[in-house]
Amino acid sequence: MKNLEDYVRNINDFPKEGIIFRDVTSVIQDKAGLKLAVDSMQNLLKDLDFDIVVAPESRGFIFGMPIAYNLNKGFVPVRKKGKLPCETISQDYDLEYGSATLQMHLDSIKPNDKVVIIDDLLATGGTIEAIIKMVERLGGQVVRICTLIELVDLKARDRLKNYSIVSCVKYKGE
Amino acid sequence: MKNLEDYVRNINDFPKEGIIFRDVTSVIQDKAGLKLAVDSMQNLLKDLDFDIVVAPESRGFIFGMPIAYNLNKGFVPVRKKGKLPCETISQDYDLEYGSATLQMHLDSIKPNDKVVIIDDLLATGGTIEAIIKMVERLGGQVVRICTLIELVDLKARDRLKNYSIVSCVKYKGE
Repeated sequence: MKNLEDYVRNINDFPKEGIIFRDVTSVIQDKAGLKLAVDSMQNLLKDLDFDIVVAPESRGFIFGMPIAYNLNKGFVPVRKKGKLPCETISQDYDLEYGSATLQMHLDSIKPNDKVVIIDDLLATGGTIEAIIKMVERLGGQVVRICTLIELVDLKARDRLKNYSIVSCVKYKGE
Repeated sequence: MKNLEDYVRNINDFPKEGIIFRDVTSVIQDKAGLKLAVDSMQNLLKDLDFDIVVAPESRGFIFGMPIAYNLNKGFVPVRKKGKLPCETISQDYDLEYGSATLQMHLDSIKPNDKVVIIDDLLATGGTIEAIIKMVERLGGQVVRICTLIELVDLKARDRLKNYSIVSCVKYKGE
């Protein structure tokens, strides 16, 4: 039986020289890989009391939605600036490869909502930190951050040290 | 009990004047709306023999992934140019509000794969037509197109008349 690591495709020098890109499309285009990835992430949320899944476009949607469906939660998309049609809250952030602004709908989180943030990959934690700021400004509480892949050396856990972080596949030493 | 239509938020003049934007974020941020949307779409695929779900970024991912998971299929993301890390096939297309290039990984579809294309909304069918072209160039066969919402007056069914199209909520007369 294949492990999750076996499904991840490693691509050198994408999107720029010196970066090893961890491709999740190879995981999900295989039905067994897709099921294993979703089930493995979901397993890290079992017995957790929470209200809603929040995930950034677009790879966060890939894992956030099946988990929201399976655990009977709502799903809130975090999008790049200008994509959401109603009133939004905005947060600037630094990306691994640049900077940008993320937005959520103002009515997407209610005060005291317990939020799980889901994404494909945890790198520096910049995207996640921006989402946490928006959720908290809206009165929500981030109770867990769950990613398929974690690039340990980029130290998101230091940056997000007050939060519960779980991931399925950890890469170190790059 | 609420119908799917009751969860869709209608926004005037977004992204530009004269357009009524059908917002699906209001559907999925409610756990009952999310379940109803996914189940309703999935119901339109039952008893269909197919191999893989293909969906465009980023709202196609929202519905494509839970359906792929539930029906035990693989999932292939269609992305804007430059986002996919491996060798791709490209297709230019006209959007409702502009034009762009879509890409899929070359190894994502195998010859004779039976493909279901999933998206949130069917408007002119331009995006779907571009995806069909790529799937067919890769040797796959599009056996159904499934969207949550259909804007009937934009006549995607004329444009895509050789394909099976299903949708859950139809808007006419705008």
